[in-house]
Amino acid sequence: MMNNINSSETALLDFSVWAAKKQAQIENILDSTLPPANTTPQALHRAMRYSALEGGKRIRALLCYAASELCGTDTKVTDAAACAIELIHAYSLVHDDMPCMDDDDLRRGKPSCHKQFNDATALLVGDALQSLAFEVLSQPHLCTQVDHQISMLNTLAKASGSTGMAGGQAIDLASVGKTLSQADLELMHQLKTGALIQAAVLLGGVNGDIVKTTAISVYAKNIGLAFQVIDDILDVEADSSTLGKTAGKDADNNKPTYVTILGLANAKQYAQQLYSNAINALMPFGESALRLHELAELITQRRC
Amino acid sequence: MMNNINSSETALLDFSVWAAKKQAQIENILDSTLPPANTTPQALHRAMRYSALEGGKRIRALLCYAASELCGTDTKVTDAAACAIELIHAYSLVHDDMPCMDDDDLRRGKPSCHKQFNDATALLVGDALQSLAFEVLSQPHLCTQVDHQISMLNTLAKASGSTGMAGGQAIDLASVGKTLSQADLELMHQLKTGALIQAAVLLGGVNGDIVKTTAISVYAKNIGLAFQVIDDILDVEADSSTLGKTAGKDADNNKPTYVTILGLANAKQYAQQLYSNAINALMPFGESALRLHELAELITQRRC
Repeated sequence: MMNNINSSETALLDFSVWAAKKQAQIENILDSTLPPANTTPQALHRAMRYSALEGGKRIRALLCYAASELCGTDTKVTDAAACAIELIHAYSLVHDDMPCMDDDDLRRGKPSCHKQFNDATALLVGDALQSLAFEVLSQPHLCTQVDHQISMLNTLAKASGSTGMAGGQAIDLASVGKTLSQADLELMHQLKTGALIQAAVLLGGVNGDIVKTTAISVYAKNIGLAFQVIDDILDVEADSSTLGKTAGKDADNNKPTYVTILGLANAKQYAQQLYSNAINALMPFGESALRLHELAELITQRRC
Repeated sequence: MMNNINSSETALLDFSVWAAKKQAQIENILDSTLPPANTTPQALHRAMRYSALEGGKRIRALLCYAASELCGTDTKVTDAAACAIELIHAYSLVHDDMPCMDDDDLRRGKPSCHKQFNDATALLVGDALQSLAFEVLSQPHLCTQVDHQISMLNTLAKASGSTGMAGGQAIDLASVGKTLSQADLELMHQLKTGALIQAAVLLGGVNGDIVKTTAISVYAKNIGLAFQVIDDILDVEADSSTLGKTAGKDADNNKPTYVTILGLANAKQYAQQLYSNAINALMPFGESALRLHELAELITQRRC
């Protein structure tokens, strides 16, 4: 029977094995990086672990590992980078779900942090997860080339701040009930989701030469936007149980999305275009960019 | 008349001139570091500037500069360190004042961030100020010794996170209405206030040898605790207009303080003891530790 599997199926199988292995790896790293639940302050540590462990598809960590394979980045460095990226992502979800922001009760199929604990704890969980991300990435003797480490820290800080993820959230908040142009919506998502996805790829590829760095930047920018376009499509098409979060939320909140601006069919076509741009950027690297290629597929074909 | 000023008065005059100069310097650095209010996202940047500029005594920045003078740290490095520390401090105030935390309407004599803007903006302001602190400290080519830069980033991240400032806040929250031992109260404040004050001194003194680093660590630990003991005393003795924040808040909130545990007289005596410990640690360094010495005095003798 095995002989009947064609090469495309083999690649697919390989990818899911690779992804599962990397997902387990990042889970282990997060588990050992997050302070144990029985250390002071226990309530905070318990809530941090609740929010950062056992959750999500770890797309950002996978992108980090995939870029690392293309660029030959050291395993220890990539582990720290992937961990830091996932901590920043986890913090952003905790704060985004809070009542004063998206007020979402459900995250990754379980009660969001402020529902499980309380608002004050959720606030501190997000704050402490952000600090922990920078602690992980600033650990002594991480990189043989210390300049690389500084560069990773700076990239992550910029991607998280007011001209990155937090800035995107601010534009999102200000846009509720407003009509946005596609360019404005693009800027919002480029910051809100794209910046951290781009950082994941760049941190994983920190060891790359200028040609590779330029290519993975283009890849990351396109895949970051595609991720958001698909998110907007899923918000309309999927139901809450598949999505693991409340579906139809953006429409209910009168938020502009790619679907409201472009319409469903054009939004799907746009996601396809972004996918093609990302794939084209990887062309020169053939098989060594396989994982990045497969992740682009995963992102644009996901159903949740 | 000038000739009549005795040496103690001259030193005092010198200190206030030095402090005013450094306060103006850190204000300028913060002003040029914070994104301009007219850049996207404008609402967020305006609120970040509102929260981080024109406020406070900049005690942490002054401690950073004073330790830098003792240890001969490069000016550019110290400026970045002082700026990062003040950004972390500003973020913590914004989040602490939020309704789900201390719910304080007044900060530095003006409406706190969430009162002036709204809760969501305050949440994002704190998040983005924290990221900006790490961005400032991870700027390329800051230190000739890149290991020093990594060490500063790691110290700041630890001081801010769940085993530092955010952890202290979590213990504080959990302690409302409870009876704490002095040891537990000490741990809480060591994390909540002490960790960042200690980081300010250590970052400023990053260039110091092992003897100086050990001494300023002892100094910083004692001065950090003294700062909190005085805070508790002022919460009882000062009024809101002098304090620039709501007085009597801790007592109203049924929070354990040094005054509730030790009594007012013993709390004052304890602050004096901590001051002496700090000063003794500076003994070997004579005049080169003058600013640290003077800051210890300022902290223990402050009236607001």
